[in-house]
Amino acid sequence: MRVSYADMKKEFKRILLSRGFNEDQADLSAELFTENSLDGIYSHGVNRFPRVIEYLEKGYININAVPTLIESKGAFERWDGNLGMGNVNAKKAMDRAIELARQNGIGAVALGNTNHWMRGGAYGWQAARAGCIGICWTNTMPNMPVWGGKDCRIGNNPIIFAVPRAEGHVVVDMAVAQFSYGKMEECKMNGQLLPVPGGFDTAGELTRDPAEVLQTWRALPIGYWKGSGLSILLDIIAAVLSGGKSTHEIGRLGGEYALSQIFLAIEAANIAGNEFLNTAVNNVINDVVSSEKADENGRVFYPGQMEQQTRADNLANGIPVNEDIWHKICEM
Amino acid sequence: MRVSYADMKKEFKRILLSRGFNEDQADLSAELFTENSLDGIYSHGVNRFPRVIEYLEKGYININAVPTLIESKGAFERWDGNLGMGNVNAKKAMDRAIELARQNGIGAVALGNTNHWMRGGAYGWQAARAGCIGICWTNTMPNMPVWGGKDCRIGNNPIIFAVPRAEGHVVVDMAVAQFSYGKMEECKMNGQLLPVPGGFDTAGELTRDPAEVLQTWRALPIGYWKGSGLSILLDIIAAVLSGGKSTHEIGRLGGEYALSQIFLAIEAANIAGNEFLNTAVNNVINDVVSSEKADENGRVFYPGQMEQQTRADNLANGIPVNEDIWHKICEM
Repeated sequence: MRVSYADMKKEFKRILLSRGFNEDQADLSAELFTENSLDGIYSHGVNRFPRVIEYLEKGYININAVPTLIESKGAFERWDGNLGMGNVNAKKAMDRAIELARQNGIGAVALGNTNHWMRGGAYGWQAARAGCIGICWTNTMPNMPVWGGKDCRIGNNPIIFAVPRAEGHVVVDMAVAQFSYGKMEECKMNGQLLPVPGGFDTAGELTRDPAEVLQTWRALPIGYWKGSGLSILLDIIAAVLSGGKSTHEIGRLGGEYALSQIFLAIEAANIAGNEFLNTAVNNVINDVVSSEKADENGRVFYPGQMEQQTRADNLANGIPVNEDIWHKICEM
Repeated sequence: MRVSYADMKKEFKRILLSRGFNEDQADLSAELFTENSLDGIYSHGVNRFPRVIEYLEKGYININAVPTLIESKGAFERWDGNLGMGNVNAKKAMDRAIELARQNGIGAVALGNTNHWMRGGAYGWQAARAGCIGICWTNTMPNMPVWGGKDCRIGNNPIIFAVPRAEGHVVVDMAVAQFSYGKMEECKMNGQLLPVPGGFDTAGELTRDPAEVLQTWRALPIGYWKGSGLSILLDIIAAVLSGGKSTHEIGRLGGEYALSQIFLAIEAANIAGNEFLNTAVNNVINDVVSSEKADENGRVFYPGQMEQQTRADNLANGIPVNEDIWHKICEM
């Protein structure tokens, strides 16, 4: 079944209001959950919503808490998220990074003590809509071994890069794990192999069998040793600049909260000039999508293109939902 | 054979002076080449030096040119590299980003129209030595297919993240290709397979055979589709902010020059406080290196650790060089 954007947002908002959120926070959070679903990122939209309500009930999320400024130095600010709603906190942090960029060319916000931001790409799209280049990342609980290690010590720490473009923004939103556990669960349920190796099996060999990786918890970072190092650096930078917790500290909390995040905005449209910016980005995109195809029936997408197609389809025809999940939400 | 730091630097400097470089430029460039070798990155130190001299002779590098400021907005500046020596330009750009960070918490320099910076990690170590978090990246000539494509359209665009730490800085320096062509050539010469798949073979399948990848030129980005998207975004951001060339434009030049680069510095020591910074970084590093080992005789390194060990060894015992290459250099 498919649910309209308006109906989905209304349900989310109703539930958040019923849990004690004020009008502004409920509206913004509901909007962010709905937009993620609209763009096809159901795992961090409609499908994730019930788990966030569970987190509310466990007390991991401080209802109506907003971030507070801890320290300011020019174009850089450190904020405490006060364990408020993760998507609302992240949206406000990127808003502030954009304001700082308007004044200083570049703006940086480090946000500690916050909650899961759901889909990090949302804050990249947000920056791009404001004419800014956006770069942001978060740390997570430990969910992968470091390269050469066996037990989970590093996070999949998603990182986002976004560039504005009149014909559709260009956005990469990637965890530094090759596959999420959600994706591996899905492949396992469908009896499918992963398209490329996703981790180590019980014999210590690389495998495409999701069931094996789900058993060993030895998921692969992108680029093997490279993504492992990248994960460590993203974690350190987020924790150190925000004054918040790093992945290994989050791992001792018993739940994934009190995360550390970085938000950078650069005023691309003003710096580069709108016309140069758009021509330059278009030239790269046009070159890339006109590649000779590896598979003659295949297609090359630019980063963000599929989300835009899904968004247009879902706006016109409603957002596809799993009926069980949707009924569960409607009864909340 | 092994050559001391002082002797190697002296040779490089002599040759650069003989090609018309002034004292300052020759000294700085020679130092950077020598340091790369000292840290064990011979591919971008002693082994690369002869090719840079070739580039000088082809006229790709403007001897004694220095970067000029094109535009300034608060904490962000755009510089033209004037096709000067790549390592000297990059060093000066990170110097300037650090100065901007001292004033604004964060500083950003976009440098266009520059030359190959050799080892990007050098500018990360530079930022860390100044007590700053450093992030920088460069675009390159097209040397990989985009995901789903067959011909080389995207660059391996190395990106660097560095964090200062009293006991040794933490630095990731990674191209977004799984392996460099240099590494694949080396494995092929030694009759070795790559440790993990490095590209596609002539049948269009993933392969660990370096000879196959060197034939198809279908090298793999880290994380397959993820690194492909990352490469595109790094290229666009560097080109757009610097006002310089993007990878597809560089590909039409007939040589790898006129590159675009980004340098970010954040004043970590001042923002976080030296003590908190060091404790926080140490806690992450200590947690990571104490992982349960995948191979009981194996070891887990933190990013930058191996370079520091090599540096100490090479400082004490001299820098290992290939005799043929070293004699060639001495006769230049």
